[in-house]
Amino acid sequence: MTTSPRIDLDRLLGRLETFNRIGALPGGGVCRLALSDEDRAGRDLLVRWMQELGLTVTIDAIGNIVGVRSGREDSPPVMFGSHIDTVGTGGCYDGLYGVLAGLEACEALNDAGAVTRRPLALVSFTNEEGSRFAPYAMGSLVHVGGLSLDDAYAIRGIDGASVGEELRRISYVGSAKPGWLTPHAYLELHIEQGPVLEHADLVIGAVEGITGLTWTEISIRGQSAHAGTTPMHMRHDAGYAAAEIAVFVRRLAQSMGGNQKATVGRIALSPNLVNVVGERAVLTVDLRNTDEGRLQEAQRQFVTFLDRLAAQEQISIATRSLASFDPVLFPPEMVSLVETTARGLGLSCRRLPSGAGHDAQMMARICPASMIFVPSVGGLSHNVREHTKPEHLEAGAAVLMHAALRLAE
Amino acid sequence: MTTSPRIDLDRLLGRLETFNRIGALPGGGVCRLALSDEDRAGRDLLVRWMQELGLTVTIDAIGNIVGVRSGREDSPPVMFGSHIDTVGTGGCYDGLYGVLAGLEACEALNDAGAVTRRPLALVSFTNEEGSRFAPYAMGSLVHVGGLSLDDAYAIRGIDGASVGEELRRISYVGSAKPGWLTPHAYLELHIEQGPVLEHADLVIGAVEGITGLTWTEISIRGQSAHAGTTPMHMRHDAGYAAAEIAVFVRRLAQSMGGNQKATVGRIALSPNLVNVVGERAVLTVDLRNTDEGRLQEAQRQFVTFLDRLAAQEQISIATRSLASFDPVLFPPEMVSLVETTARGLGLSCRRLPSGAGHDAQMMARICPASMIFVPSVGGLSHNVREHTKPEHLEAGAAVLMHAALRLAE
Repeated sequence: MTTSPRIDLDRLLGRLETFNRIGALPGGGVCRLALSDEDRAGRDLLVRWMQELGLTVTIDAIGNIVGVRSGREDSPPVMFGSHIDTVGTGGCYDGLYGVLAGLEACEALNDAGAVTRRPLALVSFTNEEGSRFAPYAMGSLVHVGGLSLDDAYAIRGIDGASVGEELRRISYVGSAKPGWLTPHAYLELHIEQGPVLEHADLVIGAVEGITGLTWTEISIRGQSAHAGTTPMHMRHDAGYAAAEIAVFVRRLAQSMGGNQKATVGRIALSPNLVNVVGERAVLTVDLRNTDEGRLQEAQRQFVTFLDRLAAQEQISIATRSLASFDPVLFPPEMVSLVETTARGLGLSCRRLPSGAGHDAQMMARICPASMIFVPSVGGLSHNVREHTKPEHLEAGAAVLMHAALRLAE
Repeated sequence: MTTSPRIDLDRLLGRLETFNRIGALPGGGVCRLALSDEDRAGRDLLVRWMQELGLTVTIDAIGNIVGVRSGREDSPPVMFGSHIDTVGTGGCYDGLYGVLAGLEACEALNDAGAVTRRPLALVSFTNEEGSRFAPYAMGSLVHVGGLSLDDAYAIRGIDGASVGEELRRISYVGSAKPGWLTPHAYLELHIEQGPVLEHADLVIGAVEGITGLTWTEISIRGQSAHAGTTPMHMRHDAGYAAAEIAVFVRRLAQSMGGNQKATVGRIALSPNLVNVVGERAVLTVDLRNTDEGRLQEAQRQFVTFLDRLAAQEQISIATRSLASFDPVLFPPEMVSLVETTARGLGLSCRRLPSGAGHDAQMMARICPASMIFVPSVGGLSHNVREHTKPEHLEAGAAVLMHAALRLAE
């Protein structure tokens, strides 16, 4: 090692800007839904950049992209990264920042002539968002053996296409078997996507664990009827039932308090016409809590409500689990590593849980894992106005690089 | 007149069956949305049938089709008919029955060699349903001067196409000026689309008037945000607000009682993803009452609720009126004519209001009008399982023919 490696903020910002032209939305923000043409263009660019830095690129059969930087020893690498896909109205940092900061760390180490004992592995996981294909964190879940490749391929998205078809279409069915690499440890740098760090005026969050979650798709079948002639008491209105569910889960989260969250993000009615009582409705319910028992209680109350509603409205209600993950606690020594690295760099830091799911949650099943958060302006994310200040982007990248270096020696 | 004219039920049923192959849905029912390819195919068939019976066909600039059967005098004709468009999941009788029964009446009069004093005019009005293009009863509304041709042409449908573009595309911009014909009287035969006649075991309804209605499109703008990281109290959730509105109007109708009705038939969320708090929602509210004061009271409470909701959730709510029609009362002598004609044919009958809107509601502005209802099995309509018994179809057609004959002498 000839010089001390340093993050080049301008280079990182330049890569973020270039990359975010792919899928850019007219009013700001990006749309790179998993396995779309935009996702493919982003993958192509990432692979090119990895190769330009001398990383050895491997793509597995679920499309996860890994670039390995050799170490002095051929031992399990220290892995870091995140994802490049976005939600439909995504911001410029969610996922992509963790990948490009990892890339910047590799280039900074190259510039410094640094060679680590263990190899470093930069990863971009397939379909972390889950907006198009549920469940989220699909690439990392397949990597750790939590979902079979065949089951993943068969999953159909909101537009009817399957994961297998779309992976083939964009030419990202790689030859490596998912799970081919078990890292020594996994680190994920990410924007907080919430307001905690900003409100506390802190730069770094050392993530203690990940909120548990259930995603349920609810299909309601009522009876379509004329809006002008059908007495209110004779209706079996699928649209009304969907609305009742959305109102119920909001009140449930509010009455449970703590960090219980509940969201109805998707609703579709059929026939969806102004003068026809709805025959069918499909909606999703997203419930989250860091406490496993409280999450189960929320799910129990929710299911009980559905039964009562079906009986009251004389409609049929079918449910399908799109995702269900228990809360995850990261190993204390990994959380401490993030804290001590941040403080060693003179950066303010606190521990906090993550309300969002991340690939680190899956990777924690096969190796020690943790995450590094930087503040989100206004707590906004999954929103085109998502923003993180440049100095925070630089700080997070430095913590990632130095924590990875400590793990790699 | 050589013989007494008689409705030929088999011929009527045959025409209904043939016509309903156009836009037939796989599981039964039909979809002939206004100005669609299916609507065009139906229009072509109707015009051919009218011409085969010797009617003189005139098409006006909004696409209304009128077939005139000459009388002994060239005086204002007795008009009857309805519409051939349907909702997205329509039944086989709504609208079409009134048109084909009118056609059958003309053929029965031809067979009997009957010549009336006044001409008879069979009409099929454009876009009665309003499912694709609001407001409903557009063709008759333009005919009576309640909506200008230019304003009608500019209206955009749920698929973004305009009335003018679609009329031209299907080649149904006729040369006649809307309103070219002011009838002596207007009669409309229709299925009840509700449960009243069936429950009372009656064959004919003499319609006293039409329920008033408001259709409001509500556009909500909240703030998209991450479903896992955004605390419940910091959300501005457009989807939740839409659900609150749907629940509110249902409870409003139930608490007002009487024949107040309220329906949210259309809801669309954006970005409509499982893990994103909704940024925008668009929904429609359909409010109806036969009493004008009660309808205004419902509308007032509804608007007050929207203001309260916008303040509470810190979201913006914009409304746009898609339709607003006061209740209509038909002239007592026209209602009596239907009653006495039915009783003269030995058919049971009662007076009732219509909960649904119809072209007769618009025609009542320019001439004496009334309607004839026949029972709907289970009260179902705007539903693929819509059904009316053959003997009731025959009875209704007979009442239409004989009432028109009385008006024409």
